[in-house]
Amino acid sequence: EFDPIVPEAFKNSEYLMLGNLMPSVQKRVLDQMNKKPKLIVLDTMNFWMDHFMGDLKEALKNVDVLTINDEEARQLSEEYSLLKASKKILDMGPKYLIIKKGEHGAFLFAKDKVFFAPALILEEVLDPTGAGDSFAGGFIGYIAKTKEVSFENMKRAVLYGTVMASFTVEKFGTDNLKTITTEEIEARLKTLKSISQIK
Amino acid sequence: EFDPIVPEAFKNSEYLMLGNLMPSVQKRVLDQMNKKPKLIVLDTMNFWMDHFMGDLKEALKNVDVLTINDEEARQLSEEYSLLKASKKILDMGPKYLIIKKGEHGAFLFAKDKVFFAPALILEEVLDPTGAGDSFAGGFIGYIAKTKEVSFENMKRAVLYGTVMASFTVEKFGTDNLKTITTEEIEARLKTLKSISQIK
Repeated sequence: EFDPIVPEAFKNSEYLMLGNLMPSVQKRVLDQMNKKPKLIVLDTMNFWMDHFMGDLKEALKNVDVLTINDEEARQLSEEYSLLKASKKILDMGPKYLIIKKGEHGAFLFAKDKVFFAPALILEEVLDPTGAGDSFAGGFIGYIAKTKEVSFENMKRAVLYGTVMASFTVEKFGTDNLKTITTEEIEARLKTLKSISQIK
Repeated sequence: EFDPIVPEAFKNSEYLMLGNLMPSVQKRVLDQMNKKPKLIVLDTMNFWMDHFMGDLKEALKNVDVLTINDEEARQLSEEYSLLKASKKILDMGPKYLIIKKGEHGAFLFAKDKVFFAPALILEEVLDPTGAGDSFAGGFIGYIAKTKEVSFENMKRAVLYGTVMASFTVEKFGTDNLKTITTEEIEARLKTLKSISQIK
Protein backbone atom coordinates (compact mmCIF):
# COMPACT_ATOMS: atom_id res chain seq x y z
CA GLU A 1 0.00 0.00 0.00
CA PHE A 2 3.04 2.23 -0.12
CA ASP A 3 2.21 5.25 -2.24
CA PRO A 4 5.22 7.55 -2.46
CA ILE A 5 4.68 11.27 -2.95
CA VAL A 6 7.52 12.97 -4.79
CA PRO A 7 8.28 16.34 -3.12
CA GLU A 8 7.73 19.35 -5.37
CA ALA A 9 11.43 20.23 -5.28
CA PHE A 10 12.36 16.84 -6.75
CA LYS A 11 9.86 16.83 -9.61
CA ASN A 12 12.26 18.50 -12.01
CA SER A 13 15.20 16.23 -11.24
CA GLU A 14 17.29 15.42 -14.28
CA TYR A 15 18.61 12.13 -12.93
CA LEU A 16 16.19 9.65 -11.46
CA MET A 17 17.12 6.49 -9.58
CA LEU A 18 14.18 4.15 -9.09
CA GLY A 19 15.29 1.96 -6.20
CA ASN A 20 14.41 -1.69 -5.84
CA LEU A 21 10.64 -1.60 -5.13
CA MET A 22 7.43 -3.00 -6.58
CA PRO A 23 7.42 -2.07 -10.31
CA SER A 24 4.01 -0.36 -10.06
CA VAL A 25 5.38 1.86 -7.27
CA GLN A 26 8.41 2.71 -9.39
CA LYS A 27 6.03 3.69 -12.18
CA ARG A 28 4.01 5.91 -9.84
CA VAL A 29 7.19 7.78 -8.93
CA LEU A 30 8.09 8.24 -12.58
CA ASP A 31 4.56 9.46 -13.38
CA GLN A 32 4.90 12.29 -10.85
CA MET A 33 7.89 13.87 -12.55
CA ASN A 34 7.13 17.19 -14.27
CA LYS A 35 9.23 16.26 -17.30
CA LYS A 36 11.13 13.21 -18.46
CA PRO A 37 14.48 13.10 -16.65
CA LYS A 38 17.67 12.99 -18.72
CA LEU A 39 18.46 9.60 -17.27
CA ILE A 40 16.20 7.10 -15.52
CA VAL A 41 17.87 4.17 -13.76
CA LEU A 42 15.78 1.29 -12.45
CA ASP A 43 17.00 -1.31 -9.97
CA THR A 44 14.99 -4.47 -9.44
CA MET A 45 15.31 -8.07 -8.24
CA ASN A 46 14.14 -11.65 -8.66
CA PHE A 47 11.23 -11.22 -6.21
CA TRP A 48 9.49 -8.74 -8.53
CA MET A 49 10.20 -10.99 -11.49
CA ASP A 50 8.59 -13.93 -9.68
CA HIS A 51 5.40 -12.07 -8.82
CA PHE A 52 5.06 -8.96 -11.00
CA MET A 53 6.85 -9.76 -14.25
CA GLY A 54 4.14 -8.05 -16.32
CA ASP A 55 4.38 -4.79 -14.36
CA LEU A 56 8.17 -4.95 -14.47
CA LYS A 57 8.26 -5.36 -18.25
CA GLU A 58 5.86 -2.45 -18.54
CA ALA A 59 8.14 -0.29 -16.36
CA LEU A 60 11.21 -1.30 -18.38
CA LYS A 61 9.77 0.34 -21.49
CA ASN A 62 10.33 3.74 -19.92
CA VAL A 63 13.77 3.46 -18.33
CA ASP A 64 17.23 4.20 -19.69
CA VAL A 65 19.33 1.95 -17.48
CA LEU A 66 18.41 -1.32 -15.79
CA THR A 67 20.62 -2.72 -13.03
CA ILE A 68 20.24 -6.39 -12.07
CA ASN A 69 22.49 -9.30 -11.14
CA ASP A 70 23.49 -12.21 -13.37
CA GLU A 71 20.83 -14.62 -12.09
CA GLU A 72 18.14 -12.00 -12.57
CA ALA A 73 19.37 -11.28 -16.11
CA ARG A 74 18.97 -14.97 -16.86
CA GLN A 75 15.52 -15.08 -15.28
CA LEU A 76 14.31 -11.98 -17.11
CA SER A 77 15.63 -13.04 -20.51
CA GLU A 78 15.29 -16.81 -20.22
CA GLU A 79 18.82 -17.04 -21.66
CA TYR A 80 21.85 -18.51 -19.90
CA SER A 81 24.51 -16.71 -21.92
CA LEU A 82 24.78 -13.18 -20.54
CA LEU A 83 25.53 -11.94 -24.06
CA LYS A 84 22.26 -13.35 -25.37
CA ALA A 85 20.47 -12.20 -22.22
CA SER A 86 21.75 -8.65 -22.67
CA LYS A 87 20.43 -8.48 -26.23
CA LYS A 88 16.97 -9.65 -25.22
CA ILE A 89 16.80 -7.26 -22.27
CA LEU A 90 17.94 -4.27 -24.33
CA ASP A 91 15.06 -5.12 -26.69
CA MET A 92 12.65 -4.74 -23.75
CA GLY A 93 13.28 -1.02 -23.47
CA PRO A 94 16.41 -0.01 -21.54
CA LYS A 95 19.15 1.58 -23.65
CA TYR A 96 21.75 0.44 -21.14
CA LEU A 97 21.96 -2.65 -19.00
CA ILE A 98 24.21 -3.27 -16.00
CA ILE A 99 24.64 -6.86 -14.91
CA LYS A 100 26.26 -7.11 -11.49
CA LYS A 101 28.17 -10.25 -10.54
CA GLY A 102 29.17 -9.36 -6.97
CA GLU A 103 32.79 -10.27 -6.28
CA HIS A 104 33.14 -11.15 -9.98
CA GLY A 105 32.57 -7.59 -11.21
CA ALA A 106 29.95 -5.95 -13.40
CA PHE A 107 29.07 -5.70 -17.08
CA LEU A 108 27.71 -2.62 -18.82
CA PHE A 109 25.88 -3.27 -22.07
CA ALA A 110 24.45 -1.04 -24.78
CA LYS A 111 23.55 -1.97 -28.35
CA ASP A 112 26.69 -3.63 -29.78
CA LYS A 113 28.77 -2.41 -26.84
CA VAL A 114 30.15 -4.19 -23.79
CA PHE A 115 32.28 -2.99 -20.92
CA PHE A 116 33.40 -5.01 -17.94
CA ALA A 117 34.66 -3.72 -14.60
CA PRO A 118 36.23 -6.13 -12.11
CA ALA A 119 35.35 -5.87 -8.44
CA LEU A 120 37.97 -4.60 -6.05
CA ILE A 121 39.80 -7.44 -4.40
CA LEU A 122 39.29 -7.06 -0.67
CA GLU A 123 40.96 -8.54 2.38
CA GLU A 124 37.66 -8.88 4.23
CA VAL A 125 34.03 -8.93 3.18
CA LEU A 126 31.79 -8.63 6.22
CA ASP A 127 28.30 -8.21 4.77
CA PRO A 128 27.18 -7.84 1.13
CA THR A 129 23.86 -6.25 2.16
CA GLY A 130 23.42 -2.92 0.39
CA ALA A 131 26.17 -3.49 -2.15
CA GLY A 132 23.71 -3.19 -5.04
CA ASP A 133 22.21 0.02 -3.66
CA SER A 134 25.65 1.54 -3.09
CA PHE A 135 26.61 0.56 -6.61
CA ALA A 136 23.49 2.22 -8.03
CA GLY A 137 24.06 5.34 -5.95
CA GLY A 138 27.69 5.65 -6.99
CA PHE A 139 26.72 5.07 -10.60
CA ILE A 140 23.97 7.67 -10.94
CA GLY A 141 25.74 10.05 -8.57
CA TYR A 142 28.71 10.15 -10.92
CA ILE A 143 26.50 10.69 -13.96
CA ALA A 144 24.53 13.45 -12.21
CA LYS A 145 27.74 15.16 -11.16
CA THR A 146 29.41 14.99 -14.56
CA LYS A 147 26.16 15.52 -16.51
CA GLU A 148 27.22 13.37 -19.43
CA VAL A 149 24.99 10.56 -20.60
CA SER A 150 27.21 8.42 -22.83
CA PHE A 151 28.61 4.90 -22.88
CA GLU A 152 32.12 6.21 -22.16
CA ASN A 153 30.98 8.16 -19.14
CA MET A 154 28.91 5.23 -17.92
CA LYS A 155 32.06 3.10 -17.92
CA ARG A 156 33.54 5.53 -15.42
CA ALA A 157 30.25 5.57 -13.50
CA VAL A 158 30.38 1.76 -13.23
CA LEU A 159 33.84 2.08 -11.68
CA TYR A 160 32.51 4.56 -9.12
CA GLY A 161 29.60 2.25 -8.38
CA THR A 162 32.06 -0.60 -7.88
CA VAL A 163 34.14 1.50 -5.49
CA MET A 164 31.11 2.56 -3.43
CA ALA A 165 29.94 -1.06 -3.16
CA SER A 166 33.41 -2.11 -2.00
CA PHE A 167 33.17 0.22 1.00
CA THR A 168 29.69 -1.05 1.90
CA VAL A 169 30.60 -4.75 2.02
CA GLU A 170 33.55 -4.18 4.36
CA LYS A 171 31.34 -3.12 7.27
CA PHE A 172 27.82 -3.73 8.54
CA GLY A 173 25.10 -1.30 7.46
CA THR A 174 26.20 2.10 6.26
CA ASP A 175 29.08 2.49 8.75
CA ASN A 176 31.77 2.80 6.10
CA LEU A 177 29.75 5.09 3.82
CA LYS A 178 29.23 7.60 6.61
CA THR A 179 32.93 8.19 7.16
CA ILE A 180 34.74 7.72 3.83
CA THR A 181 36.41 10.70 2.24
CA THR A 182 36.70 11.77 -1.38
CA GLU A 183 40.40 10.93 -1.17
CA GLU A 184 39.63 7.34 -0.12
CA ILE A 185 37.15 6.99 -2.97
CA GLU A 186 39.66 8.32 -5.50
CA ALA A 187 42.40 6.06 -4.14
CA ARG A 188 40.22 2.98 -4.68
CA LEU A 189 39.26 4.18 -8.12
CA LYS A 190 42.93 4.40 -8.98
CA THR A 191 43.50 0.87 -7.66
CA LEU A 192 40.54 -0.42 -9.63
CA LYS A 193 41.82 1.13 -12.83
CA SER A 194 45.32 -0.22 -12.25
CA ILE A 195 43.91 -3.74 -11.87
CA SER A 196 42.29 -3.85 -15.28
CA GLN A 197 44.21 -1.49 -17.53
CA ILE A 198 46.98 -2.53 -19.87
CA LYS A 199 49.55 -0.56 -21.84
CA GLU B 1 54.58 -45.15 -12.76
CA PHE B 2 54.83 -42.58 -15.53
CA ASP B 3 58.46 -41.55 -15.87
CA PRO B 4 58.80 -38.94 -18.60
CA ILE B 5 62.09 -38.70 -20.51
CA VAL B 6 62.80 -35.21 -21.79
CA PRO B 7 64.19 -35.43 -25.37
CA GLU B 8 67.71 -34.09 -25.75
CA ALA B 9 66.54 -31.31 -28.06
CA PHE B 10 64.20 -29.94 -25.37
CA LYS B 11 66.69 -29.93 -22.51
CA ASN B 12 67.86 -26.40 -23.24
CA SER B 13 64.37 -24.91 -23.54
CA GLU B 14 64.13 -21.44 -22.11
CA TYR B 15 60.41 -21.61 -21.37
CA LEU B 16 59.08 -24.63 -19.51
CA MET B 17 55.41 -25.45 -19.00
CA LEU B 18 54.88 -28.19 -16.42
CA GLY B 19 51.40 -29.46 -17.23
CA ASN B 20 48.93 -30.67 -14.64
CA LEU B 21 50.52 -33.95 -13.43
CA MET B 22 51.69 -35.52 -10.17
CA PRO B 23 54.06 -32.98 -8.54
CA SER B 24 56.90 -35.53 -8.27
CA VAL B 25 56.63 -36.16 -12.03
CA GLN B 26 56.73 -32.43 -12.69
CA LYS B 27 59.89 -32.27 -10.58
CA ARG B 28 61.49 -35.14 -12.53
CA VAL B 29 60.93 -33.18 -15.75
CA LEU B 30 62.47 -30.08 -14.27
CA ASP B 31 65.47 -32.07 -12.99
CA GLN B 32 66.28 -33.24 -16.52
CA MET B 33 66.77 -29.74 -17.91
CA ASN B 34 70.39 -28.86 -18.70
CA LYS B 35 70.04 -25.38 -17.22
CA LYS B 36 67.37 -23.48 -15.36
CA PRO B 37 64.81 -22.17 -17.89
CA LYS B 38 64.12 -18.43 -18.03
CA LEU B 39 60.55 -19.12 -17.02
CA ILE B 40 58.98 -22.17 -15.41
CA VAL B 41 55.20 -22.35 -15.29
CA LEU B 42 53.47 -25.03 -13.23
CA ASP B 43 49.82 -25.98 -13.58
CA THR B 44 48.21 -28.13 -10.90
CA MET B 45 44.81 -28.98 -9.41
CA ASN B 46 42.89 -29.90 -6.26
CA PHE B 47 43.53 -33.65 -6.73
CA TRP B 48 47.27 -33.21 -6.15
CA MET B 49 46.57 -30.92 -3.21
CA ASP B 50 44.34 -33.58 -1.64
CA HIS B 51 46.90 -36.36 -1.95
CA PHE B 52 50.38 -34.91 -2.51
CA MET B 53 50.37 -31.49 -0.84
CA GLY B 54 53.92 -32.00 0.49
CA ASP B 55 55.34 -32.82 -2.94
CA LEU B 56 53.43 -29.95 -4.47
CA LYS B 57 54.76 -27.42 -1.97
CA GLU B 58 58.28 -28.76 -2.63
CA ALA B 59 57.77 -28.30 -6.39
CA LEU B 60 56.43 -24.77 -5.89
CA LYS B 61 59.76 -23.64 -4.46
CA ASN B 62 61.33 -23.95 -7.89
CA VAL B 63 58.72 -22.46 -10.22
CA ASP B 64 58.20 -18.91 -11.46
CA VAL B 65 54.49 -19.00 -12.26
CA LEU B 66 51.74 -21.10 -10.70
CA THR B 67 48.37 -21.40 -12.44
CA ILE B 68 45.38 -22.63 -10.43
CA ASN B 69 41.70 -21.83 -10.10
CA ASP B 70 40.04 -19.88 -7.29
CA GLU B 71 38.94 -22.92 -5.28
CA GLU B 72 42.43 -24.38 -5.49
CA ALA B 73 43.97 -21.07 -4.40
CA ARG B 74 41.73 -21.20 -1.33
CA GLN B 75 42.63 -24.82 -0.63
CA LEU B 76 46.36 -24.25 -1.05
CA SER B 77 46.46 -21.12 1.10
CA GLU B 78 43.66 -21.89 3.56
CA GLU B 79 42.44 -18.34 2.99
CA TYR B 80 39.05 -17.38 1.53
CA SER B 81 40.03 -13.88 0.36
CA LEU B 82 41.91 -14.28 -2.91
CA LEU B 83 44.05 -11.30 -1.96
CA LYS B 84 45.19 -12.99 1.24
CA ALA B 85 45.49 -16.31 -0.62
CA SER B 86 47.73 -14.73 -3.24
CA LYS B 87 50.10 -13.35 -0.62
CA LYS B 88 50.45 -16.71 1.11
CA ILE B 89 51.01 -18.56 -2.17
CA LEU B 90 53.60 -16.08 -3.40
CA ASP B 91 55.44 -16.76 -0.13
CA MET B 92 55.58 -20.47 -1.06
CA GLY B 93 57.93 -19.84 -3.97
CA PRO B 94 56.28 -18.67 -7.19
CA LYS B 95 57.08 -15.10 -8.22
CA TYR B 96 53.84 -14.90 -10.16
CA LEU B 97 50.46 -16.46 -9.51
CA ILE B 98 47.56 -16.80 -11.92
CA ILE B 99 44.15 -17.53 -10.41
CA LYS B 100 41.64 -18.61 -13.03
CA LYS B 101 37.93 -18.07 -12.41
CA GLY B 102 36.51 -19.60 -15.60
CA GLU B 103 33.74 -17.43 -17.05
CA HIS B 104 34.59 -14.81 -14.40
CA GLY B 105 38.09 -14.11 -15.74
CA ALA B 106 41.58 -14.49 -14.32
CA PHE B 107 43.85 -12.70 -11.86
CA LEU B 108 47.59 -12.28 -12.23
CA PHE B 109 49.47 -11.55 -9.02
CA ALA B 110 53.05 -10.64 -8.20
CA LYS B 111 54.40 -9.04 -5.04
CA ASP B 112 52.27 -5.89 -4.51
CA LYS B 113 50.85 -6.18 -8.03
CA VAL B 114 47.47 -7.31 -9.31
CA PHE B 115 46.04 -7.52 -12.81
CA PHE B 116 42.64 -8.82 -13.77
CA ALA B 117 41.49 -9.97 -17.20
CA PRO B 118 37.80 -10.65 -17.83
CA ALA B 119 36.77 -13.70 -19.80
CA LEU B 120 35.36 -13.19 -23.26
CA ILE B 121 31.60 -13.18 -23.20
CA LEU B 122 30.44 -15.98 -25.48
CA GLU B 123 27.14 -16.85 -27.09
CA GLU B 124 27.66 -20.58 -26.50
CA VAL B 125 29.88 -22.61 -24.20
CA LEU B 126 29.83 -26.25 -25.21
CA ASP B 127 32.50 -27.87 -23.04
CA PRO B 128 34.94 -26.27 -20.58
CA THR B 129 37.30 -29.28 -20.73
CA GLY B 130 40.80 -28.17 -21.66
CA ALA B 131 40.19 -24.49 -21.00
CA GLY B 132 42.91 -24.40 -18.35
CA ASP B 133 45.43 -26.13 -20.62
CA SER B 134 44.62 -23.80 -23.51
CA PHE B 135 45.01 -20.85 -21.18
CA ALA B 136 48.41 -22.09 -20.01
CA GLY B 137 49.53 -22.77 -23.58
CA GLY B 138 48.46 -19.35 -24.79
CA PHE B 139 50.13 -17.74 -21.79
CA ILE B 140 53.56 -19.32 -22.06
CA GLY B 141 53.42 -19.36 -25.86
CA TYR B 142 53.10 -15.59 -25.86
CA ILE B 143 55.96 -15.17 -23.37
CA ALA B 144 58.18 -17.55 -25.35
CA LYS B 145 57.43 -15.71 -28.57
CA THR B 146 58.02 -12.23 -27.18
CA LYS B 147 60.89 -13.32 -24.87
CA GLU B 148 60.06 -10.80 -22.18
CA VAL B 149 59.57 -11.94 -18.61
CA SER B 150 57.91 -9.00 -16.86
CA PHE B 151 54.61 -8.25 -15.16
CA GLU B 152 53.56 -5.97 -18.03
CA ASN B 153 54.21 -8.65 -20.62
CA MET B 154 52.49 -11.27 -18.49
CA LYS B 155 49.35 -9.10 -18.51
CA ARG B 156 49.31 -9.44 -22.29
CA ALA B 157 50.08 -13.15 -21.98
CA VAL B 158 47.06 -13.57 -19.70
CA LEU B 159 44.90 -11.98 -22.40
CA TYR B 160 46.26 -14.44 -24.98
CA GLY B 161 45.61 -17.31 -22.58
CA THR B 162 42.06 -16.06 -22.13
CA VAL B 163 41.55 -15.88 -25.89
CA MET B 164 42.86 -19.41 -26.47
CA ALA B 165 40.62 -20.78 -23.70
CA SER B 166 37.62 -19.06 -25.29
CA PHE B 167 38.13 -21.00 -28.51
CA THR B 168 38.46 -24.31 -26.65
CA VAL B 169 35.21 -24.03 -24.71
CA GLU B 170 33.13 -23.33 -27.81
CA LYS B 171 33.69 -26.81 -29.28
CA PHE B 172 34.37 -30.32 -28.05
CA GLY B 173 38.00 -31.42 -27.76
CA THR B 174 40.55 -29.50 -29.79
CA ASP B 175 38.33 -28.96 -32.83
CA ASN B 176 38.44 -25.18 -32.67
CA LEU B 177 42.16 -24.96 -31.87
CA LYS B 178 43.05 -26.96 -34.97
CA THR B 179 41.45 -24.52 -37.38
CA ILE B 180 41.71 -21.03 -35.88
CA THR B 181 43.83 -18.45 -37.63
CA THR B 182 46.13 -15.75 -36.28
CA GLU B 183 43.59 -13.20 -37.52
CA GLU B 184 40.83 -14.79 -35.46
CA ILE B 185 43.04 -14.80 -32.38
CA GLU B 186 43.96 -11.14 -32.86
CA ALA B 187 40.31 -10.20 -33.43
CA ARG B 188 39.31 -11.75 -30.10
CA LEU B 189 42.22 -10.08 -28.37
CA LYS B 190 40.99 -6.75 -29.67
CA THR B 191 37.47 -7.51 -28.39
CA LEU B 192 38.83 -8.55 -25.02
CA LYS B 193 40.82 -5.35 -24.68
CA SER B 194 37.83 -3.24 -25.73
CA ILE B 195 35.72 -4.87 -23.00
CA SER B 196 37.96 -3.83 -20.16
CA GLN B 197 39.80 -0.70 -21.23
CA ILE B 198 38.73 2.82 -20.40
CA LYS B 199 39.81 6.22 -21.66
